[in-house]
Amino acid sequence: MKKRNYPLKDVYRLLEPGPVALVTTSYRGESNIMTMSWQTMIDFEPPIVACVISNRNHSFEMIRKSKECVLNIPTLEIAKQVVGCGNTSGDSVDKFKKFKLTALPATTVKAPLIDECYASLECKVIDSKLANKYNLFFLEVQKAWVAPLKKYPSTLHHFGDGHFMIAGKTIKLASKMK
Amino acid sequence: MKKRNYPLKDVYRLLEPGPVALVTTSYRGESNIMTMSWQTMIDFEPPIVACVISNRNHSFEMIRKSKECVLNIPTLEIAKQVVGCGNTSGDSVDKFKKFKLTALPATTVKAPLIDECYASLECKVIDSKLANKYNLFFLEVQKAWVAPLKKYPSTLHHFGDGHFMIAGKTIKLASKMK
Repeated sequence: MKKRNYPLKDVYRLLEPGPVALVTTSYRGESNIMTMSWQTMIDFEPPIVACVISNRNHSFEMIRKSKECVLNIPTLEIAKQVVGCGNTSGDSVDKFKKFKLTALPATTVKAPLIDECYASLECKVIDSKLANKYNLFFLEVQKAWVAPLKKYPSTLHHFGDGHFMIAGKTIKLASKMK
Repeated sequence: MKKRNYPLKDVYRLLEPGPVALVTTSYRGESNIMTMSWQTMIDFEPPIVACVISNRNHSFEMIRKSKECVLNIPTLEIAKQVVGCGNTSGDSVDKFKKFKLTALPATTVKAPLIDECYASLECKVIDSKLANKYNLFFLEVQKAWVAPLKKYPSTLHHFGDGHFMIAGKTIKLASKMK
């Protein structure tokens, strides 16, 4: 998917609606993918994001040690791969290979971009003081890539128990909220 | 809207898809409403939520001092009130009165439930150590109320610049993810 550089000040628009993300990490030559939807924006610019990566996940040590990751945002087209990545562990599976996802090099971090996702955010961990207590990592987005879509992306929103809401229609209201 | 007690272990299903929430607070007899969508689940049970309430908002001191709030989840039916609450400040406006929203008493906190929202989560602040650095409050949900809907709720998801995505259709996949 051909992507363009996206303004950092607008990154909140990608994460604020609450999409499922695929977190990629890389450490000592190994890369992994984790399905996640426990994240929130913390600040606009530079964009800071907080995300929960459980210490039961293979990615926990990967992000803690490498201090980097990429948040990739998938759409309905790859829903099966998203669930596949959530149902398997990087302990025993090369998820790029198993789910036929394409790793592309990032520019500011070693973790790869996932080509099949419509957006990718290159992130550095800026604060991991709450990693032990809450599994919480604070990330600063270094660079954002977004595919220019014809309409709004059909992002996935996790409801639990195998149910996902697919992003519906968009309305415009007289909002002054940033 | 008639609501039922909702199991605390399932609260993540309400917040994980990323809906806009109306945060109510109460302090020394004054109540306020704030529109928010920077929140994430932190843990399942007891349900812990982290949310960003900026120190530029009237609600910041209200929650900091009272150590309580309610997260109310609105649907499309009250989208105009949601935006109205986001465009005004509790410094100068009684938002319950101005936007004709009904405050109902909660059972475990002084902050009120909003009757017109389909779900309400009574919360206590359990950690505000990052309130100064990141405007971040950690909440533990004490009690959850949800209206039994005929179908999935048409929650609002903020895209920025006055745009909101309305929750679309739901799919079921073979997910083992909690």
